[in-house]
Order: sequence, then structure tokens, then C-alpha cells
Amino acid sequence: MTGVSPFAPQRFPALPPVAGLRVAGAATGLKKNTEAYDLLLAALAPGTTVAGVLTRSRCPSAPVDWCRKILPRGRARGLVVNSGNANAFTGVAGDRTVALTAEAAARLLDARPQEIFIASTGVIGNVLSEHAIPQRLPALADGLADQAWVDAARAIMTTDTFPKGAARRARIGDAEVTIAGIAKGSGMIAPDMATMLSFVFTDAKVPAAVLQAALRRGADRSFNSITVDSDTSTSDTLLLFATGQARHAKITHAADPLLRDFRRALEETLIDLATQVVKDGEGASKFITIDVTGAASARAARRIGLSIANSPLVKTAIAGEDANWGRIVMAVGKAGEEADRDRLSIAMGGVQITRNGQPVPDYDEAPVARHLKGRNVDIAVDIGIGRGRARVWTCDLTHDYIAINADYRS
Amino acid sequence: MTGVSPFAPQRFPALPPVAGLRVAGAATGLKKNTEAYDLLLAALAPGTTVAGVLTRSRCPSAPVDWCRKILPRGRARGLVVNSGNANAFTGVAGDRTVALTAEAAARLLDARPQEIFIASTGVIGNVLSEHAIPQRLPALADGLADQAWVDAARAIMTTDTFPKGAARRARIGDAEVTIAGIAKGSGMIAPDMATMLSFVFTDAKVPAAVLQAALRRGADRSFNSITVDSDTSTSDTLLLFATGQARHAKITHAADPLLRDFRRALEETLIDLATQVVKDGEGASKFITIDVTGAASARAARRIGLSIANSPLVKTAIAGEDANWGRIVMAVGKAGEEADRDRLSIAMGGVQITRNGQPVPDYDEAPVARHLKGRNVDIAVDIGIGRGRARVWTCDLTHDYIAINADYRS
Repeated sequence: MTGVSPFAPQRFPALPPVAGLRVAGAATGLKKNTEAYDLLLAALAPGTTVAGVLTRSRCPSAPVDWCRKILPRGRARGLVVNSGNANAFTGVAGDRTVALTAEAAARLLDARPQEIFIASTGVIGNVLSEHAIPQRLPALADGLADQAWVDAARAIMTTDTFPKGAARRARIGDAEVTIAGIAKGSGMIAPDMATMLSFVFTDAKVPAAVLQAALRRGADRSFNSITVDSDTSTSDTLLLFATGQARHAKITHAADPLLRDFRRALEETLIDLATQVVKDGEGASKFITIDVTGAASARAARRIGLSIANSPLVKTAIAGEDANWGRIVMAVGKAGEEADRDRLSIAMGGVQITRNGQPVPDYDEAPVARHLKGRNVDIAVDIGIGRGRARVWTCDLTHDYIAINADYRS
Repeated sequence: MTGVSPFAPQRFPALPPVAGLRVAGAATGLKKNTEAYDLLLAALAPGTTVAGVLTRSRCPSAPVDWCRKILPRGRARGLVVNSGNANAFTGVAGDRTVALTAEAAARLLDARPQEIFIASTGVIGNVLSEHAIPQRLPALADGLADQAWVDAARAIMTTDTFPKGAARRARIGDAEVTIAGIAKGSGMIAPDMATMLSFVFTDAKVPAAVLQAALRRGADRSFNSITVDSDTSTSDTLLLFATGQARHAKITHAADPLLRDFRRALEETLIDLATQVVKDGEGASKFITIDVTGAASARAARRIGLSIANSPLVKTAIAGEDANWGRIVMAVGKAGEEADRDRLSIAMGGVQITRNGQPVPDYDEAPVARHLKGRNVDIAVDIGIGRGRARVWTCDLTHDYIAINADYRS
């Protein structure tokens, strides 16, 4: 229908293994296109802790309900993800499919069903046969390997045009630990909570409660700060697993200074994955970074940034390479956050366009027009009333978005 | 760029005169295209009362600030509206342009500046010369006439593809009164408050406070229940003028039973105008009516309806004539209102698709597919938890929306 995103990397990044993790991804015939990868299995060492951030949709999928139920236990031994069928809006049948899948994976991994996390992505409202995944798991388990990252990333793709992975190293005291993960998503992506699917793994040894605090903070600055089309999926799931295989000083609480570099590396990994999702936004031709400063609070800054990022009029103007900054004023105004028209300053591509509520004298549109012809567009908005700041990312709204979404299912 | 909306009526409706009102609309050279109508003047009889609903944007235009300031006085003698330049984000210069325009119109109409209402629509951020409108008003005033409705409707158009007017008769006691109005808008249209520009006139004699209550109620069920692209303008303005020329029993309070038929007729007029705006939605190929029932409250029902109506994924699916009801589930889920996945029922074109959270047995997509090929699409959603209901209207999201908005300004 349309080609690969212009932002697709030359190749999938070389991700390091994470001690205590083995993964497998394959084409198992769940999708109509039997050559498309569709199933992921991850096996996690005993003692693995887990944290998660799940969709705030009031109509979540059966797997999201399951993850929400088992997350408070904080323990994980396995992860099963299928693509092509979201197992959402499938009633009691959907719950049963999840339960049988968890049991089947638990048998294979010598674990308890409550230690098996499950996610599904794809079409809503089609029943996923309760035996479909269980009967495919044994063959998949035979292929579990230390470094099957690209297979895993492919197995969770739907309308994505490239597999997404990222990794960072971090120091905890004298030890070095690894953080590596994958993500999928290219539409139905908006905050609250905004993640599509992403699974991140580390060999650090971190209690579940501490892991949860770090993930929540990191998610707010990454997956909760991106938007493609303002729509929120029934299935959004971000999970962080810590296998505990690294040897480092013991971590006991969220504010432990030993964790500072780990939090930095986690945030970088999450932002790397989240921005890849935006860059694969359906029909995206421009990657847009919006910095909001001078808002009443960080929360207000993020809401204003997302109001700009979600505005169809701003997004179409950028698709048309049109420096129509009046639409940015409009989007700031509709955000519902405190603003003062006469203090508002806007810049694009580093060129100041308005200051204190008026176009700057002798504003020259030429350098802004040149900036807009590039792939990366930077918008900076200063609200001029406080110290709140935030950065959000989005893509433009193009003909290809319509083409992709007007006949995704048919 | 693109043609006239497929929903454009064969001809502008025949609107009756309203006693105490004279209007004029003309091409006065404010727009680049000197043949395009661009300026409206209305003269109102002494004693005219006024009510208004204005944009909630935090960055409103100078004319909106002006209207908000003079509305509490409740008196009107004139209305000046220009199209092509929104006089928004124009700082002190914008305020001065408004003040001089009000003074010029007041001189012509033998009124006070505080009795002159002003609205502007068009590009944001371009200064509108303070003399531009005042110097054009005398010639326009010479053309004031009882029945220049189509000129008036044309004078306020921007990207609209057809002029919009509507009228109804109502009884107040033994007397018959007239309600007639015009509207413009085809993009940047969303609730909160959602009106673009609309001006409605009646010869009824109604105190300003009573008029305001009736307008607020009517606006919620009409202009605040439509959306094209979720964007809210800096300039949205809905004004209702009552010239008081009709002879009927005296109205003193908002709950007066004498006003029942007037409220009905006003609501019908507003819905007629508001749905015309949706039918002229930028790029619209389908007119979508969404009925939400069984919500926790009427307010919750409206928010759920608008969440569906604003979803790019729902709107593109309908553009593609795809009965992708899973996206409706998604939009209900993201509305943030109380919902229970397992009680949700969805119908399209009168055909039940899901009931109590699952596809109905033997659901046949064929009649729904046929319904979606038509111009008018009906969606009914029952939340199944309460008695709140609402109806909202929107249009689909098409390639033409992108084409229109990716180069509106250039």
C-alpha cells in the first residue's frame, strides 16, 4: 500500500544479550500471510522481577486485564506476544484464551501461569482460538536463544514498516548492566497511556517496587510524550523485566543514588524506542520535536505540547511544509492550560517567529521554510508564565495516513 | 483545489426577513481575491438584546475579547464581520483595529461603540489595518436591506464551499416570531466551544439574560455537539440577537412556559446551521450521526460521542467504507468516561453488530457495508450502564482534508 518509513534505519541495531533472558520469534501461521512473523516467546530466569505500565482504556483487551492482575506479584518467568489479533472485545472467550496460553507457557518454562505475561496486538473483535497459541508454543520454545532480538522485534509488528530495538549500558556501583528492548506501533498511538507494545529487559537486580517507580518515570518522558494520531489502543503495554543476573550492590529503594545511571540509561532506551515508534508513524514524512518551556508546570507543558502534537491542522501544515504558526497559537489556546496570548513566543528550526504575542519585527520566513523542507522539524514554544517544561514528539499527517487507515482491515 | 461539498444544497434557503434587522454583505477588496465577499454589516433596531457563546481558547482573537467585554451589557445595535483575516495574535494593534471599527460602525448606525459586535475569521497572526474596515463601512451601509441573507452568508465564508443559512417560525403565546441565521466554518471545528462563526436573529422580545440561557442550552445540543477535526479556533463566536419588534406577551424569566416553542425553534435552527457546517467539513465525503445511549450521564454520553467523532481511526475507516467497529470500541475506551466492555453494544445503519461486549452471533457485515457506501452514516452506541444520552455529528477524514490543509495558507 505504502512503502517503508523514510526514517527506517539501514539495519536493526546490534543488541547485546541480557543474562537470564532467551527469546524466540517466528512465523507460525497465526496471520493470513503465513510468512509474516506473528509469535514471540521470552523465557526469564528464576527471580526475575517485573514492572509495567498499561493502557488507560476503559475497554482493555483480555491480555491487558491479565497483566494488570498479575503485575502486583512482581514476578515473571515468561512473556508471550502475538500479532495480528488483539484479543480485545472478545468477552469470556478472550479471557479463556489468555488463561490457556499462560498455562501452556508455564508448563514449557517450568513456571506458574501467574508468572507468564501476555500481550496481543492487531484487529479488535475477532476471537482468537484458545488453542492457537498453546499448540504453537512448543516449537517456538525449541528456538529460544540468547540473541534472537530481530526475530522478537519482527514477531510483534503489525502495520510497522521496520522492527524497533534499542539498548544502553549503565553502571550500578562498580558493575555494568545491560538494558535492551523492543517496541512496535505506528498508529493508534497517543498518551494516556501511549505505548502500543514495548518490552524491555535488564540483567540488573532490582526489586519490583523500585523497578515500577523507575519505569513510571521513564514512561512519562518517553512513551507518554509521543503521539501519532491521538488514539489510544485497547492493548497498550509496556513491561520491564529485570533478571537479576548481574552482580552489583543491593538496591533497596527507589531513591537509591546507586540507581542514577540506571535510570538515565533506562530513560534513554525508552526514548529511543518511543521515537522509533513515532518515526514509523503511519504515513509519517516528518519527525517533529516540540519543546514547551515557561508553562505553569511540567504537566501543563506536556499537555500543551501534546495539544500541538495532536492538532490535525498543525500536522497537515507541516506535511505541506507550510510555516503556518497561527495553528500553533490555536493549539496552545485549546490545550486548556494557563496561557497568556501576549507572552507567547514561538520558534521553528531555531528561528524566532513570534515574541510576546506578536510576530517579531522583520520576521523572515525563508530560513523557516528551508527548515520545514527537511525530515526533522523542531518547534519551540515559550508560554512565558512559569518554569514548567516538556518535550514531546510526533509526526506529520499525510495522504499516506489516510491511505493506510482507510483500508487497513479490508 | 477541491470541489464543492457533496452535501451542498441546490440553492441557499429562502430566509424570511426579521423585523428590526437590515444586513449587507459585499466584496470590498479585503481579500486577495477581490471578487470574494469579505465584509458583513448588520443594523439592529434600538432595544435589541443579545446573547453569545464564545471560544474557550486561551489565545482568543481581539474581536472575541471585545465581544466578551460588551456582552454583559446585553444590548446590540450593530454587527461587523470580516473574513480572510482573523485579527488574532495581533497584539495591541488588533485591539485598536477592533476599537476603531466599533467606533466607525457606531457613527453610521447612530449607536454607541459598546453596542457594536465584531467578529473576524481567516488567517491568524497578520495585522489587520485599523482603517481597512472603517473606510469600507459607509459604502456597505448604503446597501443595508431587509433580505440580503445570501450576501451576508457569503461575506463570512473562508474555506466554506457553500453559504449556510437556516430559519424557523415559533409561537410565543398568540404571536408568531421568526428565527433566522447564518453560519460559516468547515475546519478547526470542535467543541469547547465549537462554533466557528454563527449569527442568529429573531424579532422576539426577550431579555438578554433569558436569551443567554436559551442560547447556552441550544448551543450545547448543536454547535457544541459537532466536530470536524477536534481543533478549536481562536475566533469561535455564536451570537443571538433579539430585535424585540414582535408583539407578544412579556417574557421575564428563562423557565417561562411561553418560551417552550421558541426554544424548540431556536434549537432546530442551531442544529440546522451546525450540521451544515459539518456537511461542509473540509474534505467531507460522509455525514456521520452518532447516538450514544446508556451512559452514566448526558455529559458522559456527549464526551463518548465526541471521542468517537474525533478519532482519526474511526473517521478514516468510514472514509474507506470499512465497518471497522473495533475502532469504535477503542474510541469509547479512550473517552475517559465510565464504560464496561462487557455491556457495550454497537450498531451501524440500524444493524446490531455487537451486544454486551461481543459480536452478535451470525453478524452479517453485508448490510452494514451497503450502509457505509451511502453519504449518511449512522452509528449507535449503547454503553449499558445508565440513562445518559447524546447525539453528535461529524464527517469522515479524507485525502481532501489533507489536500486542503497542507497548503491553505500558501
